[in-house]
Amino acid sequence: MSAPSPEGPQQVRIALGDRSYDILIGAGLMDRPATWDGLPQAAAALIVSNTTVAPLYAARLRAALAPRYRSVHEVVLPDGEDHKDWQTLNRVFDALLARGCDRKTVLFALGGGVVGDMTGFAAASYMRGVPFVQVPTTLLAQVDSSVGGKTAINHPLGKNMIGAFYQPARVVCDLDTLATLPPRELSAGLAEVIKYGPIADMDFLAWIEANIDALMARDPQALAHAVRRSCEIKAEVVGQDERESGLRAILNFGHTFGHAIEAGLGYGQWLHGEAVGCGMVMALQLSRRLGLVDEAFVQRVTALVARAGLPTVGPALGADRYLELMRVDKKAEAGEIRFVVIERPGQAGVRGAPDALVRQVLADCTR
Amino acid sequence: MSAPSPEGPQQVRIALGDRSYDILIGAGLMDRPATWDGLPQAAAALIVSNTTVAPLYAARLRAALAPRYRSVHEVVLPDGEDHKDWQTLNRVFDALLARGCDRKTVLFALGGGVVGDMTGFAAASYMRGVPFVQVPTTLLAQVDSSVGGKTAINHPLGKNMIGAFYQPARVVCDLDTLATLPPRELSAGLAEVIKYGPIADMDFLAWIEANIDALMARDPQALAHAVRRSCEIKAEVVGQDERESGLRAILNFGHTFGHAIEAGLGYGQWLHGEAVGCGMVMALQLSRRLGLVDEAFVQRVTALVARAGLPTVGPALGADRYLELMRVDKKAEAGEIRFVVIERPGQAGVRGAPDALVRQVLADCTR
Repeated sequence: MSAPSPEGPQQVRIALGDRSYDILIGAGLMDRPATWDGLPQAAAALIVSNTTVAPLYAARLRAALAPRYRSVHEVVLPDGEDHKDWQTLNRVFDALLARGCDRKTVLFALGGGVVGDMTGFAAASYMRGVPFVQVPTTLLAQVDSSVGGKTAINHPLGKNMIGAFYQPARVVCDLDTLATLPPRELSAGLAEVIKYGPIADMDFLAWIEANIDALMARDPQALAHAVRRSCEIKAEVVGQDERESGLRAILNFGHTFGHAIEAGLGYGQWLHGEAVGCGMVMALQLSRRLGLVDEAFVQRVTALVARAGLPTVGPALGADRYLELMRVDKKAEAGEIRFVVIERPGQAGVRGAPDALVRQVLADCTR
Repeated sequence: MSAPSPEGPQQVRIALGDRSYDILIGAGLMDRPATWDGLPQAAAALIVSNTTVAPLYAARLRAALAPRYRSVHEVVLPDGEDHKDWQTLNRVFDALLARGCDRKTVLFALGGGVVGDMTGFAAASYMRGVPFVQVPTTLLAQVDSSVGGKTAINHPLGKNMIGAFYQPARVVCDLDTLATLPPRELSAGLAEVIKYGPIADMDFLAWIEANIDALMARDPQALAHAVRRSCEIKAEVVGQDERESGLRAILNFGHTFGHAIEAGLGYGQWLHGEAVGCGMVMALQLSRRLGLVDEAFVQRVTALVARAGLPTVGPALGADRYLELMRVDKKAEAGEIRFVVIERPGQAGVRGAPDALVRQVLADCTR
């Protein structure tokens, strides 16, 4: 565990009126008492974690919360995207009700995107809403899923189909937790970091290219900058469009193809970030075929995706299956698939595309 | 089916900023095209109903919606409070996903409180939120549960424990549907009508006393007034406190004892309104023992509850069991039960009470 940096944690504000909150980013945040100041008061807290993360960090979080809540309960869920379902979610409700937790109880999501999404939806739904705090322990969760209030579980017919927009009271990104992240998950997180370049910030894309080796080597300064800049971009987008009626959809760059890969292979085969990395390559190829960007730009981003240790070629599910899976994407409208494309480097948009063009992309990008 | 009254439907506005909506009240509303004007546009609608109500009214609703949506789907759930669970809710998600319904799909809740609560929670959660319309077909749903955006399902350890505050786009109270209501359900609805008197409006209480025979005989004018005045009072309370951080809790008068009766007997043994009717008598006795109202007032309301065909004596579950069940009520805080009491006739408040006093009430009011 590294000492808190002398300048203290960095802070990014999500401005959403009375639902505004801060993202704290820094090393050693969990053990720093000020991290937990000013959260909603309650008799009880419930830490929700999984079998991988709980043994590493739950005791630290519990120690940090013990002075602040009369009871600190804990529920440990099985790890993995294939457990992001109602049965597993219900274990959180069982724990809350069995312990007599009232509607002021604060939930703490300690883990990656799956734990965060499920804890958030549990908090949104328990007694019609209790406060919750995100304590993301993966790069992907720190730069993307813990920020912005999207919560959900999967349904056998589609990913994240059942959920809520429900904002946390705070997001605590303790960079120390990235030290224990398996290499595959580090890469998966980098997919969402890279995403912010083509859709919003070409300077950031250039910075990632220059620092990809440092990021892969988990250089703390590089990671801190990547997390902060990612959160800043996400904060700006979410602040303008909390419920994804327009702009916010650009954050799903790579996700339409990516969700099809995840669902087609069965959740948990590829990590979400791996599917998004490959999905970005597909979405870029589609953007090129729509005449929006040139091949050089596609290759530039594809090379970066590869350097981040991510797949750039999708599984051969067959174009029909891809199209079928993408038609149940949440962005689809009246059966038309809506793709997030790069309109020009640094700017994304949402468009339909002829099936024939999508089939060409899939023929090029799957094997 | 009666003709629409010449003066047209009555309208009550729920003022909640960009979540505001109208309650329409009148005879023959379902068949009146204007009833459905101005709702959110979508390719598809899904009618959610149950095995009792669907055969009576689903065809009429479907005919009314057919000109407005390319597809009008239907899902028919089993009837009853004991089906207000995740398994049944999931049938709505299954239907939506199997039919490729996108996130503009409009859900229509055609039925009583259970159908409304489940459809509302399904709408709140499907793809993180789609619009929905309440078409309540019971008196209880028309005067209470369809209005105000409380949605939920039950958990084995507590009623309405999992849900959301999620407002409908409109509430359509077609008074014609009350003609087919079983007598027991009419009485159950009158419990929630009577409720509005002691908590908010003594003139309304006097009106109900004067018109209880007409209401029991389903006199259309009497029912129209009862529904409208109930909705007006509820609209005022909900407009001031949408998420029940304070005032709104008074609408739960009779519900703390009532939920204990329902849960203690097993959901579905007593109707919700029956439990509330008896629960109001208990809450009034508690108010008297707290020195807030006199015995004459308790007897006055108890007599009205009895005239509405409702039980005024609770099942003998034992005081320990009642107390245990009430401690998981959503209003409870840190294990202390919060009772809605009558502070003085026409005004309610929320208070704790010594267990000994509650035991005396239970001894008096159960058999």
